[in-house]
Amino acid sequence: MTVITLLTDFGTADYFVGAMKGAILSVNPRAVITDITHEVPPQDIDSAAFMLLGAYKTFPPGTIHVAVVDPGVGSARRPIIVKAGKQFFVGPDNGIFTYIYEREPKHQTFHVTAEKYFRKPTSTTFHGRDVFAPVAAALSNGVKVEAFGPKISDEVRLENSLVPEVKDGRVKGRIIQIDRFGNCITNITRDLLGGEGARLVVKGKTIRKFQDFYADESGRRNELFAIWGSAGFLEISVAGDSAADKLGAKIGDRITVTGLQNLQD
Amino acid sequence: MTVITLLTDFGTADYFVGAMKGAILSVNPRAVITDITHEVPPQDIDSAAFMLLGAYKTFPPGTIHVAVVDPGVGSARRPIIVKAGKQFFVGPDNGIFTYIYEREPKHQTFHVTAEKYFRKPTSTTFHGRDVFAPVAAALSNGVKVEAFGPKISDEVRLENSLVPEVKDGRVKGRIIQIDRFGNCITNITRDLLGGEGARLVVKGKTIRKFQDFYADESGRRNELFAIWGSAGFLEISVAGDSAADKLGAKIGDRITVTGLQNLQD
Amino acid sequence: MTVITLLTDFGTADYFVGAMKGAILSVNPRAVITDITHEVPPQDIDSAAFMLLGAYKTFPPGTIHVAVVDPGVGSARRPIIVKAGKQFFVGPDNGIFTYIYEREPKHQTFHVTAEKYFRKPTSTTFHGRDVFAPVAAALSNGVKVEAFGPKISDEVRLENSLVPEVKDGRVKGRIIQIDRFGNCITNITRDLLGGEGARLVVKGKTIRKFQDFYADESGRRNELFAIWGSAGFLEISVAGDSAADKLGAKIGDRITVTGLQNLQD
Repeated sequence: MTVITLLTDFGTADYFVGAMKGAILSVNPRAVITDITHEVPPQDIDSAAFMLLGAYKTFPPGTIHVAVVDPGVGSARRPIIVKAGKQFFVGPDNGIFTYIYEREPKHQTFHVTAEKYFRKPTSTTFHGRDVFAPVAAALSNGVKVEAFGPKISDEVRLENSLVPEVKDGRVKGRIIQIDRFGNCITNITRDLLGGEGARLVVKGKTIRKFQDFYADESGRRNELFAIWGSAGFLEISVAGDSAADKLGAKIGDRITVTGLQNLQD
Repeated sequence: MTVITLLTDFGTADYFVGAMKGAILSVNPRAVITDITHEVPPQDIDSAAFMLLGAYKTFPPGTIHVAVVDPGVGSARRPIIVKAGKQFFVGPDNGIFTYIYEREPKHQTFHVTAEKYFRKPTSTTFHGRDVFAPVAAALSNGVKVEAFGPKISDEVRLENSLVPEVKDGRVKGRIIQIDRFGNCITNITRDLLGGEGARLVVKGKTIRKFQDFYADESGRRNELFAIWGSAGFLEISVAGDSAADKLGAKIGDRITVTGLQNLQD
Repeated sequence: MTVITLLTDFGTADYFVGAMKGAILSVNPRAVITDITHEVPPQDIDSAAFMLLGAYKTFPPGTIHVAVVDPGVGSARRPIIVKAGKQFFVGPDNGIFTYIYEREPKHQTFHVTAEKYFRKPTSTTFHGRDVFAPVAAALSNGVKVEAFGPKISDEVRLENSLVPEVKDGRVKGRIIQIDRFGNCITNITRDLLGGEGARLVVKGKTIRKFQDFYADESGRRNELFAIWGSAGFLEISVAGDSAADKLGAKIGDRITVTGLQNLQD
């Protein structure tokens, strides 16, 4: 039994996600289908890339992740399969797998051209159902990844790398996601902040306090603090409130880290 | 392993959907339960009928679809099972399967009277859990459809047929759904628009442009266009925006097609 | 195949729920994962306790319920497993299982201390993924509940018992939940209202009408009525409208029942 995960911007109020699941089960009735989320903001490829990054490593080897945020559906953009770290990623070649490429440098990418694996008739408006779902299901049935099409190396990547700029002893990052609780997730990883004495500046506010967990009682209510979040990134948080609301922060806002003592340029 | 799909207006914030799944798994632990959607607007049977229509054909033979939008729960309305096209549909007899009847004219309908398949005690307020879920689960265990009750032929149908009116060389349709992206889905199917030169009039605006896919670059930004959507219906769309917002359109609004050359009355 | 249910306040827009499912499937690929809800209001332990109460009895023996509404994640609060009524409950010791303790007085509670069952590295911010999911999965693989840690008897309980106050021939209850349809669910159970002649007073309005089902045609449109809801509690409802809106009611509001003839103090 192979796990197939789904990540889309289709929402859950329409029949779209159900139709994708039906298309998978029609090809492989034994597939174990698991949702990551369907509430990626419409056509927001950056957010989808982050969501996938946050979830994929928890899944077992052999898992097939289907990610469909696809404003170019029906156009010339390529359907691809990425093989990376014993898992597979199926979706449009529009940058949605950028962070997988960064984290899994030994990945291989295949352009899906074997239309025999598509659902017939194949619409020009719903490749989630007609291309990506049946291709993932065929893969889960044991079809070799090479059978879907030629290997490529010129994958489309997002403009915004996940890696922050490091220069003159400063780390210049950005807020890459705001979660349900209002925590502001940055693209700053632990390896960049080896030393003591880091100061964060975001939206004109300076943050010096680092906490190990959200409910640390040493914190004052309403005090902003930094914390290492569960996807491995630095987050800005506040006890019992939304840090995003308190800061007036939104995705894309800049964050600078100074005062680092042993930062390597 | 049999697939059982769920389609309700219960939302996902309450325990209702979870309770239905528990009730199914208690009768058949091997059932593969798949959500279509639970966000049908409360008590909106028309929307539920459309969602089911959009999704059911993607599922494999033998699938059992449970659809519960049921304002008459506990009253005299009948629980029914519809056998159609190698699939089964379980729900209240309130018109929710109208479009299945239209698409699958050889269907058979059974009035579920065999209370031994109900969950005990059987509430008067939650037949999703106590009637429809366990009946579907029993069906998935191999109980013959005839065992649930007598065949009937007077099923309740929605007032609004899915089939638009065709008269004097015009097609008079309506908007039957607006999706998450603001696309306006009409009840106009491809067989009605065989010829060239069709013009659509909706909300006082005339649309002449037909596109093959959403991101067609021949389109001007902000230009409304028509496109064949993934459920086989004509949709009104606009690049990078919500057509519904742009038109001020809502479900039920009329759309007229004129200029058809070889339309059969 | 063991059923593992999930109940959280994580929402479905982030990758959190997907990551929990991945963590489970990595330990037991054959687990059948079922959502109860992920839309518990953030950090609202009372609501989570009610949702679990509403759903758990529909699931088969052996089911493992994972409930994570966990403002104290990473602090000293204990992870626990509760064995009750042939089912298991896994989550933080913060009162989330209070109503299970009340309904299943023979339950046993275990403090989970065996860190070998945790996901490594174990974060301080996401025990849903790193502690509760893998512990539930290990349990579903057949690890004995005693292997996770010592039995305890001082579980944390919510301040608000589910049991209403009965005094001087009156029942003093409260609204414990408002559902998607605006029905106001109280903590008043059927055993408390044995007699005839009950009158409900809520938000200054007196309600004398009891209905057996929502669509009872003896009711006048707009008339508030009481009904026994599907979780076994008295609800306040109104035909075709939201009782909560009509009453201006919110969770926690008081409701008094008078006029009871054979109420035992």
